[in-house]
Amino acid sequence: MKKIVVAFLLVLAFAAPLAAQTWIWYPGDYELWLGNEMNNRRTERGTFFPPFWKMDSHYVLVEFSKSINLTAPEEITIAAEGRYNVKLDGKLLFGAPRKLLLPSGNHKLNIKVHNQHTPPALFVKGETVHSDSSWRVTYEDKEWIDESGKASDTSTTVYSAAGCWNFNSIEQLPSHFRLPVKEQQPVSRKKDRGELIDFGKETFGYLVLKGLKGQGDLNIYYGESPEEAQYTAHCETLDRLRIAGSSVTDLATSEVSSFQDEYTLKDSKAFRYVYITNDEGVDVEQVNMLYEYMPEEYRGGFRCNDEEINRIWDVAAYTLHLTTREFFIDGIKRDRWVWSGDALQSYLMNYYLFFDGDEVKRTTWLLRGKDPVTSHVNTIMDYTFFWFLGVYDYYKYTGDAAFVRQLYPRMQSLMDYVLSRTDDNGMVQGLAGDWVFVDWADGAMSKQGELSFEQILFCKSLETMSLCAGLANDTKGEKHYSTLAGALRGKLEPAFWNEHKQALVHNRFNGQQSGQVTRYANMFAVFFNYLTPAQQQAVKHSVLLNDSVMKITTPYMRFYELEALCALGEQGNVLKEIKSYWGGMLKEGATSFWEKYNPADKGAEHLAMYGRPYGKSLCHAWGASPIYLLGKYFLGVTPVKEGYKEFAVRPVLGGLKWMEGDVPTPGGKIHVYMDKHAIRVSASKGKGTLYFASKHTPKVSRGQAVRTDKDSYRLNIDSGEEITVHYD
Amino acid sequence: MKKIVVAFLLVLAFAAPLAAQTWIWYPGDYELWLGNEMNNRRTERGTFFPPFWKMDSHYVLVEFSKSINLTAPEEITIAAEGRYNVKLDGKLLFGAPRKLLLPSGNHKLNIKVHNQHTPPALFVKGETVHSDSSWRVTYEDKEWIDESGKASDTSTTVYSAAGCWNFNSIEQLPSHFRLPVKEQQPVSRKKDRGELIDFGKETFGYLVLKGLKGQGDLNIYYGESPEEAQYTAHCETLDRLRIAGSSVTDLATSEVSSFQDEYTLKDSKAFRYVYITNDEGVDVEQVNMLYEYMPEEYRGGFRCNDEEINRIWDVAAYTLHLTTREFFIDGIKRDRWVWSGDALQSYLMNYYLFFDGDEVKRTTWLLRGKDPVTSHVNTIMDYTFFWFLGVYDYYKYTGDAAFVRQLYPRMQSLMDYVLSRTDDNGMVQGLAGDWVFVDWADGAMSKQGELSFEQILFCKSLETMSLCAGLANDTKGEKHYSTLAGALRGKLEPAFWNEHKQALVHNRFNGQQSGQVTRYANMFAVFFNYLTPAQQQAVKHSVLLNDSVMKITTPYMRFYELEALCALGEQGNVLKEIKSYWGGMLKEGATSFWEKYNPADKGAEHLAMYGRPYGKSLCHAWGASPIYLLGKYFLGVTPVKEGYKEFAVRPVLGGLKWMEGDVPTPGGKIHVYMDKHAIRVSASKGKGTLYFASKHTPKVSRGQAVRTDKDSYRLNIDSGEEITVHYD
Repeated sequence: MKKIVVAFLLVLAFAAPLAAQTWIWYPGDYELWLGNEMNNRRTERGTFFPPFWKMDSHYVLVEFSKSINLTAPEEITIAAEGRYNVKLDGKLLFGAPRKLLLPSGNHKLNIKVHNQHTPPALFVKGETVHSDSSWRVTYEDKEWIDESGKASDTSTTVYSAAGCWNFNSIEQLPSHFRLPVKEQQPVSRKKDRGELIDFGKETFGYLVLKGLKGQGDLNIYYGESPEEAQYTAHCETLDRLRIAGSSVTDLATSEVSSFQDEYTLKDSKAFRYVYITNDEGVDVEQVNMLYEYMPEEYRGGFRCNDEEINRIWDVAAYTLHLTTREFFIDGIKRDRWVWSGDALQSYLMNYYLFFDGDEVKRTTWLLRGKDPVTSHVNTIMDYTFFWFLGVYDYYKYTGDAAFVRQLYPRMQSLMDYVLSRTDDNGMVQGLAGDWVFVDWADGAMSKQGELSFEQILFCKSLETMSLCAGLANDTKGEKHYSTLAGALRGKLEPAFWNEHKQALVHNRFNGQQSGQVTRYANMFAVFFNYLTPAQQQAVKHSVLLNDSVMKITTPYMRFYELEALCALGEQGNVLKEIKSYWGGMLKEGATSFWEKYNPADKGAEHLAMYGRPYGKSLCHAWGASPIYLLGKYFLGVTPVKEGYKEFAVRPVLGGLKWMEGDVPTPGGKIHVYMDKHAIRVSASKGKGTLYFASKHTPKVSRGQAVRTDKDSYRLNIDSGEEITVHYD
Repeated sequence: MKKIVVAFLLVLAFAAPLAAQTWIWYPGDYELWLGNEMNNRRTERGTFFPPFWKMDSHYVLVEFSKSINLTAPEEITIAAEGRYNVKLDGKLLFGAPRKLLLPSGNHKLNIKVHNQHTPPALFVKGETVHSDSSWRVTYEDKEWIDESGKASDTSTTVYSAAGCWNFNSIEQLPSHFRLPVKEQQPVSRKKDRGELIDFGKETFGYLVLKGLKGQGDLNIYYGESPEEAQYTAHCETLDRLRIAGSSVTDLATSEVSSFQDEYTLKDSKAFRYVYITNDEGVDVEQVNMLYEYMPEEYRGGFRCNDEEINRIWDVAAYTLHLTTREFFIDGIKRDRWVWSGDALQSYLMNYYLFFDGDEVKRTTWLLRGKDPVTSHVNTIMDYTFFWFLGVYDYYKYTGDAAFVRQLYPRMQSLMDYVLSRTDDNGMVQGLAGDWVFVDWADGAMSKQGELSFEQILFCKSLETMSLCAGLANDTKGEKHYSTLAGALRGKLEPAFWNEHKQALVHNRFNGQQSGQVTRYANMFAVFFNYLTPAQQQAVKHSVLLNDSVMKITTPYMRFYELEALCALGEQGNVLKEIKSYWGGMLKEGATSFWEKYNPADKGAEHLAMYGRPYGKSLCHAWGASPIYLLGKYFLGVTPVKEGYKEFAVRPVLGGLKWMEGDVPTPGGKIHVYMDKHAIRVSASKGKGTLYFASKHTPKVSRGQAVRTDKDSYRLNIDSGEEITVHYD
């Protein structure tokens, strides 16, 4: 019951329009705190199972500051999460005032908040004065850098623009945030020694035991498959309860709760099935669940003539929604953690589905943590680089430079860490403490020496640093990172390109190329445009379409493999791959997409991973990539300038008869329809260009298509108008 | 009532003998957490008044680890502050077991604890397996440094020796720690419009309002002097309560509490006097207090023929005891914060009174905080250097190298910060954000350019780093810091010695000596032995005994001034100074020693500071230095090797007829008696040497006095024996 009330409040929160005032905090601090809460909710067979990397924490004492200019006196209401004091024009006021009459004129308001348990947060509401991101905040680090990152002679305190989200009323305490829930019923129940309950599809939330009574033990085994739920010795998650009258003891934590008739489990779990066994003296009438979810609007969409593709898109969207929680997590059963490599793909899919920028920002803050940097992001070298890439993607899709500026100091210190660990060639190798991941490939890949894959990501990260330095007005940094990127870029081809193999080799050890060729570096080099056009075409055949090169068995790296093929105009092949790979999972009964799928596996082999029979996550964000591929490379919509101020539409049917869909943009969307003879495009905001091919002169509803090459045309799109093109 | 129960538990805690098992945590984390609690208890006229420097926090997720070798199976009990899991030999056990049967043989036990609110802490108790500082702990920073600070090829996780204090039973949760209290009554009450209540001497604790009833407001004004308590518009601390039946509203925080007959204030305060005013409808029968204190044994002592000196020693000991709380703080009324320069003096006094090493360690952790270093300790450049000096003093007095090793990485990063801010001469100057303090001197001192005082402290800090690097087995660091110290040392005389003034000048600006001579650098150069014997004697006359050089008006710098004079054999002058300066405060009615005392001030001028009529703290740790001077330079006891393994006794009467006292050592003490004809020395532990002067051959009770110079003798002291020397 309590949960439902909370959910109700939060639905209001999500539905609320942009308010004048909002709760504010030190940027990143609320995100770290909430992320710690979330990352620590994983259990493994009843045991608390936290991440194995450093967990950072919020600053416990921060000061908020605002310069005010009032034409008339104004009363403000003040609330804080934490103990606080208020200074007006440098004079400390009595106690912790909840109301304050500000005199007219120019004034400086400073409010200091202390809170060890949850992030110090502030809410101020008046007629014109209200807490928002225009307030400045410091943890009194006393470095003397001003907001723009430049040295200042006048201040010894670093102030940042305050962080916020959408807690816009005084009652919505940020630390009380909970995702909303909806009660749902199972679709079937089947009794043998225990009872197998099926909720019809992959889901997430809290089990509700209705009509619970009696005396004795009750065990709940969760399964993403019926096998997992029923194979009680090996299912990944479970709950063991001891019932005695109106009290329940959680046998894992020894915590005791009381209940009346109905008991809702304290911890959320991922499952489609639950298998319940209980002592004879215990009875449960009905098992429901509270589905817990992040409220998101499906702003992107895709439909086409191929129902299998439509079903793939729907299941991919549901997969992404399930893994879009307080943060973008990897999988809902496992790990329930925020991983940078996984998150980067969620970001990209998100831009073609929810376009939820706050979710990207929260995840980015959490992954970065605080200084000092003592390891790579999630301890994985590649994941550090993916973190950098995510920041620039965010800017490109949203145009939000303020966030880049806020984050830039932590970008610098993370890059300092990377640069402090390069070898004599200025390249990165896995040092002790580094996890060089790349992909799950059952040991069939070397992690020794200089991996071409890592250098390519490193180079792109340096380019990203240079771009972000520019946004943060760090002209020295912009040049510095650009020089480093250029130097590394120049070394890539000599170091890794093998003329005989017509491919980038996998790695180099003591200056010698290894014999191995893998897909990873080659596909990134394609869509990063690090190869010549001739090399790109060579790689397409020698690597990407070459079955003798080790196959990728995770949707994670299939994401980039198919992206590379799309970038090379191979949408036809990619559509077949989507149907066979993701369609393959659907044929295996998937209701969400998996962490790993090897078509060669049979039956329960599909459920195993990490040496455990049900170790595999059957709902993994990185399984949802068709959303991204269909939006970006079939509907063909991409931002050209940040935040879709300018955009491009390059629709490609890739074998479909027709397709239609929406791609969200900041505060708007772009609609695309295409069949074999016509294209219709409209955009609510921004200026775009439609690129298409036509053998004869196309007919356009308005304006003039410009021929750019044999059969290639370009046409301007203005916001608000629908353009129709007839082509052949 | 609740408070008294807590106090009772804690007295037991302090009295408990060394136990096999104790609560453990990540080293420094509990100290930071407890220190934040303490530093945030200051209020100013009813308003929360936190420090203005960065406040660090504990790691929220840590893993404890222990290798075990059992000859028989053994059951252990596990308790944690926080959620936890247990791995035995890498296998995760179900839930959070409170009991665990360990099998015989070699095993590895890992316990992970998560706690956002208070530091993750662990307690394990078995027959032979128990939590203590032999356990290792990590926050999973993934740097690969082993416990000795050396790079290791086998581990990617940094483990430190676990931190602990004296929470030796499962019930003594570290986060529940409170100082004990004792109820005390006032010595007098005097009514006018309000009521002035006198507790007889400076004290600290919680006011208890007995027989409280009625309806209306009640105001409590605290005073270290009767003037402060009664001058209600300017007293530094106060409480405003609104009484309504059985409920009290704190008008500062708006918090409401209920009471029956007796109400104890929630926040502790420093005072001797309280002045209470209340509305007519409110009535209080009796006002008592709960005196709150750190239980300390007075292991050092001093008595002599001069009753004024004895009284000074007693008041100094009480002053130090009042300011020895969870940590060594500056003053009990104000700031109630931990300041490094103040703490260093408390440490030194402590070695001659309580010899409480845990208190030094806690204070050292708290002052240091965590990385990254973003400012000097307490924002003050000199206080950073005093922090380094404190670490080596701790080692010298206690012999506890394990602590130095534990702390060494944070010593390195703090010194990195200092070294990153040196000028072209390798010297330090105040940069923006730095507070160059030196002493309170009403603006009569330049803080520009290179101050000789700061360079001398910097040089000593580099020497300290070299010594501590040696203890931490960092041979490269030992050499590096030694080289830096040598280079700076070589520059001091050319830069600052002025042959004409026969003194070190105060500062240098653009390479030019300023004309100013102050006492600060000269006195430190004396007892650091940075001057030639001839220069030392010159400085004694040209600076230390020269009335035309700006006088010091804080006991803080008088500490070092008198230490320098003692080091030059001027105990006779120092005794006179102690009688006149500290005796002067006693004559002004002091019951504890002050933050500042200028004999030239009159009446209420003594109470003012910082532009506020009662701004001065009348109980300030740095006022207690006679304890140190009398122990170190009159009884003359100092450690020669770390932890008093070897020690020296150089008793000097300095004009006294006789003196007698104890100086504590690790697990023992050294007793010294001296009059004009005889010296008696005994030591419970260690090997010592007595140095004394005698015109004729002295008579010694045992062994042989060795003549070392004209009138100078040396005599070995063995532990356990009392040596008597008759001299003339």
